[in-house]
Amino acid sequence: MTGIDDKPGRLVLAAEDFLPTEGTSRRVVLRNMLAAVAAGGTALAMRQVGAGEFEADPAHLPPHLPPWSQNLGKPVGSSPYGQPSPYERNIIRRISPGLTTTPQSSVAFTPLQNLFGIITPNGLHFERDHNGLPEVNPYEHRLMIHGLVREPKIYTMEDLLRFPSVSRIHFIECGANTAMEWGNPAVPTVQYTHGMLACSEWTGVPLSTLLDDVGFDRKRAKYILAEGADGAGLTRTIPIEFALDDVLVAYGQNGEMVRPEQGYPVRLLVPGVQGISSVKWLRRLKLGDQPWNTREESLQYSDLMPDGSSRQYTWIQEAKSVITSPSGGQQLLDKGGYYQITGYAWSGRGKVKRVDVSTDGGRNWRTAVLQEPILSKALTRFRLDWHWDGSPALLQSRCIDETGYVQPKMRQLRAVRGTRSIYHNNAIQTWQIDAEGRVHNVQV
Amino acid sequence: MTGIDDKPGRLVLAAEDFLPTEGTSRRVVLRNMLAAVAAGGTALAMRQVGAGEFEADPAHLPPHLPPWSQNLGKPVGSSPYGQPSPYERNIIRRISPGLTTTPQSSVAFTPLQNLFGIITPNGLHFERDHNGLPEVNPYEHRLMIHGLVREPKIYTMEDLLRFPSVSRIHFIECGANTAMEWGNPAVPTVQYTHGMLACSEWTGVPLSTLLDDVGFDRKRAKYILAEGADGAGLTRTIPIEFALDDVLVAYGQNGEMVRPEQGYPVRLLVPGVQGISSVKWLRRLKLGDQPWNTREESLQYSDLMPDGSSRQYTWIQEAKSVITSPSGGQQLLDKGGYYQITGYAWSGRGKVKRVDVSTDGGRNWRTAVLQEPILSKALTRFRLDWHWDGSPALLQSRCIDETGYVQPKMRQLRAVRGTRSIYHNNAIQTWQIDAEGRVHNVQV
Repeated sequence: MTGIDDKPGRLVLAAEDFLPTEGTSRRVVLRNMLAAVAAGGTALAMRQVGAGEFEADPAHLPPHLPPWSQNLGKPVGSSPYGQPSPYERNIIRRISPGLTTTPQSSVAFTPLQNLFGIITPNGLHFERDHNGLPEVNPYEHRLMIHGLVREPKIYTMEDLLRFPSVSRIHFIECGANTAMEWGNPAVPTVQYTHGMLACSEWTGVPLSTLLDDVGFDRKRAKYILAEGADGAGLTRTIPIEFALDDVLVAYGQNGEMVRPEQGYPVRLLVPGVQGISSVKWLRRLKLGDQPWNTREESLQYSDLMPDGSSRQYTWIQEAKSVITSPSGGQQLLDKGGYYQITGYAWSGRGKVKRVDVSTDGGRNWRTAVLQEPILSKALTRFRLDWHWDGSPALLQSRCIDETGYVQPKMRQLRAVRGTRSIYHNNAIQTWQIDAEGRVHNVQV
Repeated sequence: MTGIDDKPGRLVLAAEDFLPTEGTSRRVVLRNMLAAVAAGGTALAMRQVGAGEFEADPAHLPPHLPPWSQNLGKPVGSSPYGQPSPYERNIIRRISPGLTTTPQSSVAFTPLQNLFGIITPNGLHFERDHNGLPEVNPYEHRLMIHGLVREPKIYTMEDLLRFPSVSRIHFIECGANTAMEWGNPAVPTVQYTHGMLACSEWTGVPLSTLLDDVGFDRKRAKYILAEGADGAGLTRTIPIEFALDDVLVAYGQNGEMVRPEQGYPVRLLVPGVQGISSVKWLRRLKLGDQPWNTREESLQYSDLMPDGSSRQYTWIQEAKSVITSPSGGQQLLDKGGYYQITGYAWSGRGKVKRVDVSTDGGRNWRTAVLQEPILSKALTRFRLDWHWDGSPALLQSRCIDETGYVQPKMRQLRAVRGTRSIYHNNAIQTWQIDAEGRVHNVQV
């Protein structure tokens, strides 16, 4: 093909001339393309169609112009509620094989390696249920608040939606996130090591507003029991200081009603605290003068220490970070060259102040760029430009929060906590890149 | 039923005792419930089950305990990519009846009245196509950059994903949003008056990075032509100053890949500028020394003035706001009482500085509370507590942005622009509440 461009002396290539054929790697094609550009290549026939603009001449279009450029698309509004492209069908929540034996008490992990920014799309927010996913009818659902209150009350969803509301972007991390990493690395990808983590814009009524509405006993009420409406009737103790600070009775998630897997139609949201405290399908709040010591805070969700004792009521998710790209199971495409190292940092104590990144297993650290907005108790996206020299590397990230707390190394955490804690593992994660560009979960 | 509570002298009601029966309005039930609470009511049988905790005695549970509290739910991970509750099936994008006669060149509007916070869930982001929705294969899609550049290049998606990326929360508003309101109020709800509006966390490569990569002609290149890969081959001129400021070549939307209706696999994002400039399914960027004056910036998307001339290249979406609750088509449930007035404010020039709200058609104004985060060229949520006295009211909101620009009244806008502009209507919206609590779209 020969042709003219609208700027004399400049040759323009049509992308369609360079589509890969069966069996050709796309990168080879790309290199050929760029080489062709550099060499002048083949120009697409162009013709002038208007005041100053040129268009490809249909008579000279290559036969493989993609069909979506040649045909009418689907009618607008074909999907009244939209879905991802079919090409994204592998970006899903996944269950770690063998992690639990009961399908109703299990976890589906967020594919952190595929996500951008700080917002987790609702379809990919991790799911952790204790008795399976209930389908709650919002018209019949009720929230009762009782105990040390002047006037116990039962609220419909209509009532809750009438109260003054607020919205805040917060992460939720399961207390057992990264639980498999207390021992040797057991799972291959960041989806399984850190995927009980998500961040959403939550909307709801401040719990303090509802506590005022029932007239809670300001002198005696020290704790709140929160109970879910699922078959598990899951219960958690919340200190009243949390409730009066930033706890929400939340019905909104990223602009729409909370998803079923996240507690539809209403859940508790206890920012910065292990996820189980943000009780889903919330049906009851009871005010009392001491912790309840329920099954889920004694038999489960307590941290077993080396001496056999258990730490209980370790609510806060301390500062933590993880590199999501490159991360375990990925393959670097080019041997050496530019890569952007990126991931999440967060702290249950407030804002992330700084994130350091090492590519040599913690010997040298560089300060990463933090993406705005940096919000309290929310995921923060960090990035670092990196030129990989092609030799094996050990990638780590280290979060420092606004309290000055520094995310510990795995061996520092183990020295205090042993290896049987299950919960609250916020150690530095290491990804090893081997000489072939494969990324592995390792410990150093 | 009689029973005991764990706190002597306090009576606790079970929500399940008060579920509505067929034919009973939920509000009547609620009033009965609250009356019952006040009168002492009926207590659920309770028994002590553990250290300090009481549980309902199964032998005394009311027969209508909801099924989701009695049974195993669905297995975890049943939805690898989650969906909203079936009860939310009416929260959808909608096409305004009769707005366009061609289903492939039409609009599906965002249901703003149902949304919370500032993030628009991807499934509800408005859809505006000129040639229907194409299904683009990301492996075959290419982006070409050429024109006044040293080295024209063609990028695969793989290439684009390798460049340094950034994420930013920005609104997109169609230039024709609120177009129907230049004359008399024509549509009943905020979904149709303002629903070509959405806000997402976008991720992509700064266009300036790609322009550096092709070595654009810094002296001569003044404008960029952006072209879409759909059958419309939609083209728009972008000033180079925008490109070098904050324009993104975006592939991420709220954490996941851009949705098909928003330009999968890659779109331009021109923050603060009418939506059409953020060309979807982006396949070509061409650098030139003057605007292209293409069909979509001459025959369409130019503002017809009262004297018959047309304003062209009026890119910026000026400061604007709208109350989304209460809004047209809604019905206030109680005659008088507390309501939270809430809505969105935004400006294509930067941050929202202040939002005023009037309930008497603009005679008196109160300053609304702005929800954090307040971000540049992003939707900002505002709220105002309001005690409705039950008499007719005229609700308005007025946005002032950080440049000091004040959102105009409809008659101020008409005095300059007439009524045939179609585009760039950023006038103050009025919702009338009548004595029965019905909300209407009116102009004052």
